[in-house]
Amino acid sequence: MTSGHIFIATSLDGYIAREDGSIDWLEVPGAELEDHGFAEMMASVDGLIMGRGTYEKVLEFGVWPYEKPVIVLTRSLKAADIPEHIKDKVSFRASDPAELMTDLAREGWIRAYVDGGRVIQSFLSVGLIKDMVLTRVPVLLGGGRPLFGALQGDIRLNHVETQSFPSGLVSSRYQIIEPD
Amino acid sequence: MTSGHIFIATSLDGYIAREDGSIDWLEVPGAELEDHGFAEMMASVDGLIMGRGTYEKVLEFGVWPYEKPVIVLTRSLKAADIPEHIKDKVSFRASDPAELMTDLAREGWIRAYVDGGRVIQSFLSVGLIKDMVLTRVPVLLGGGRPLFGALQGDIRLNHVETQSFPSGLVSSRYQIIEPD
Repeated sequence: MTSGHIFIATSLDGYIAREDGSIDWLEVPGAELEDHGFAEMMASVDGLIMGRGTYEKVLEFGVWPYEKPVIVLTRSLKAADIPEHIKDKVSFRASDPAELMTDLAREGWIRAYVDGGRVIQSFLSVGLIKDMVLTRVPVLLGGGRPLFGALQGDIRLNHVETQSFPSGLVSSRYQIIEPD
Repeated sequence: MTSGHIFIATSLDGYIAREDGSIDWLEVPGAELEDHGFAEMMASVDGLIMGRGTYEKVLEFGVWPYEKPVIVLTRSLKAADIPEHIKDKVSFRASDPAELMTDLAREGWIRAYVDGGRVIQSFLSVGLIKDMVLTRVPVLLGGGRPLFGALQGDIRLNHVETQSFPSGLVSSRYQIIEPD
């Protein structure tokens, strides 16, 4: 099965976006000069998996930022909705997470970057995430869209390494420990 | 005014206790052999401030763990309720946070260790916290009592230092930046 990998930034209180979806607070002075490992992570995966919300947010950027194939999990969007300039990079699927990871393995994917709050939560809760890099931005928002959600039980992790940056960002890598 | 200082551990998803108050998940193999800075922090404060919930939890330990004076913020408990063996260490007050910090400064307190979820939230939201040490335990609980709560606006912080430990605990120190 293809393994899932998370690479995401949250506020100190665990939000990935404000209630209205805005991520203005992610812009920390100096952070743009630092290497937080995003390019290295991106080089290590065969493609991305995201939900409709994240996909539509990325579309708003205007310029499509990903070279690698992107799979959008959606039951409502249709292939005909994909803008012409990214038709060869984006595909829509309606599979459930485990089904998708089995299909992707058959298609030759070894590692997938799993992105977006709800998609991350659903992959985590069914054991499809192998490791995560969590970057903490030094701000408390007091509310917003949380990274983590409800689980069937505890998920224990191995801390691999932590790096802090002059901007104040602190980045920790964890491996998920398989339940006994 | 006396300054407030936080020193607390949370799960990776930001909880300080399970829904039922239990903190069994805090016991990480090897962590008991590490110096996470608690003694040093304790030596630097004039006393502790906590809510009724935390006070009652600590009482359950059987042995009272604090040498320094402890102030419990409560409107329901009465001085007569304080057990005999800690009568000289514990006092109850019903003041609001800012009032309390003004009174304590007059009484000679320079730094107070502020503990317990709701008390931390109320002190943070009115700007009475100077710095915090946040220790992340490598586990996702999926639910429980969150450390942070709603705020009037963003609180920005300066990252001072981060240390990680063989047990997997990661401890970061932040100073609260005064709003402009």
